[in-house]
Amino acid sequence: MNYPNGKRGSSMNLAPKGKKKPDFSNRGMTLEEDINVTNEYYLQAGIAVVHKKPTPVQIVNVDYPKRSAAVIKEAYFKQASTTDFNGVYRGKYIDFEAKETKNKTSFPLSNVHQHQIDHMKEVHKHGGISFLIIKFTPLDEVFLLPSPLLFQYWDDQMNGGRKSIPYTYVEKEGMRIPLHYQARVHYITAIDKLYF
Amino acid sequence: MNYPNGKRGSSMNLAPKGKKKPDFSNRGMTLEEDINVTNEYYLQAGIAVVHKKPTPVQIVNVDYPKRSAAVIKEAYFKQASTTDFNGVYRGKYIDFEAKETKNKTSFPLSNVHQHQIDHMKEVHKHGGISFLIIKFTPLDEVFLLPSPLLFQYWDDQMNGGRKSIPYTYVEKEGMRIPLHYQARVHYITAIDKLYF
Repeated sequence: MNYPNGKRGSSMNLAPKGKKKPDFSNRGMTLEEDINVTNEYYLQAGIAVVHKKPTPVQIVNVDYPKRSAAVIKEAYFKQASTTDFNGVYRGKYIDFEAKETKNKTSFPLSNVHQHQIDHMKEVHKHGGISFLIIKFTPLDEVFLLPSPLLFQYWDDQMNGGRKSIPYTYVEKEGMRIPLHYQARVHYITAIDKLYF
Repeated sequence: MNYPNGKRGSSMNLAPKGKKKPDFSNRGMTLEEDINVTNEYYLQAGIAVVHKKPTPVQIVNVDYPKRSAAVIKEAYFKQASTTDFNGVYRGKYIDFEAKETKNKTSFPLSNVHQHQIDHMKEVHKHGGISFLIIKFTPLDEVFLLPSPLLFQYWDDQMNGGRKSIPYTYVEKEGMRIPLHYQARVHYITAIDKLYF
């Protein structure tokens, strides 16, 4: 596959104007925002259909003023029972969580929650493509880590093992995700290499 | 596959107590609630992983009282850009919308929105299993209608064609979904017959 990179796009040009060589680092966008932009690009370009799930909210009180939109007056955040992103790529179910860390040498497992692990195990069991996208923010490096590798560290931790995954392990056993112009966090290339 | 039906389940018994022959009709539950119960059963029984997406909400104002949970004080409903349900079954991506009608003879297309059609077309294009679950409430009959059959009627309507899908068409070209005890709307049986 060949994706436009470093060229001006017609529909999704989000780069600073007047720059010849756009700088992909330190744009002040979160990993989640970068993935949302990437997913929008994938949809427009006919590559994949992946969406972020809305934040689950327990709505308690709604006001319906006349002639205007309903206003939610009282609501609470609920814990999600799944991961943040899912969708379809080449007929397969893909499902992932995105996490960034300020750490340079390891990914702390405290970034992940038990309910996310439980969900990822279910997805993996049912033949879905399940993984974690990890960004080491100070290094501006992003990796795809297949969820079974995460499960190993998670289960070890539960048995008193280390509380983080070394950068060296992620770099060796995961797959580096290239950072592109439109596909900011171009994770499909890593999926192609690992799963197809 | 053989699913328990009409037997008391250990973890998910939601039937009225003291009844020998539970009545599946007119339980006062919506189609969406029945599908949520079904999905929970599928998850517990290791059959599939399907979740309803949370209602998308635009959060404007949040209050953080000391020593208690954050309270959302102002928020608005946003239009969903996808369908309500998605997940993984036997490695494949499945994606659907559930609609009920009080009509006995046809399913009015006004129940479906353009953005849902757009999303379903994308999913279908990428090899996902995309369909509509239609309940004719007065008849207590539920069907799976593969989305390409819906697209035909939708596109015809756009060109001045009829504004509804006849019950007879749904009954002939769709697949009837059995209503079970735990798998209330047992749509996986219809998927097995149509797609595998």
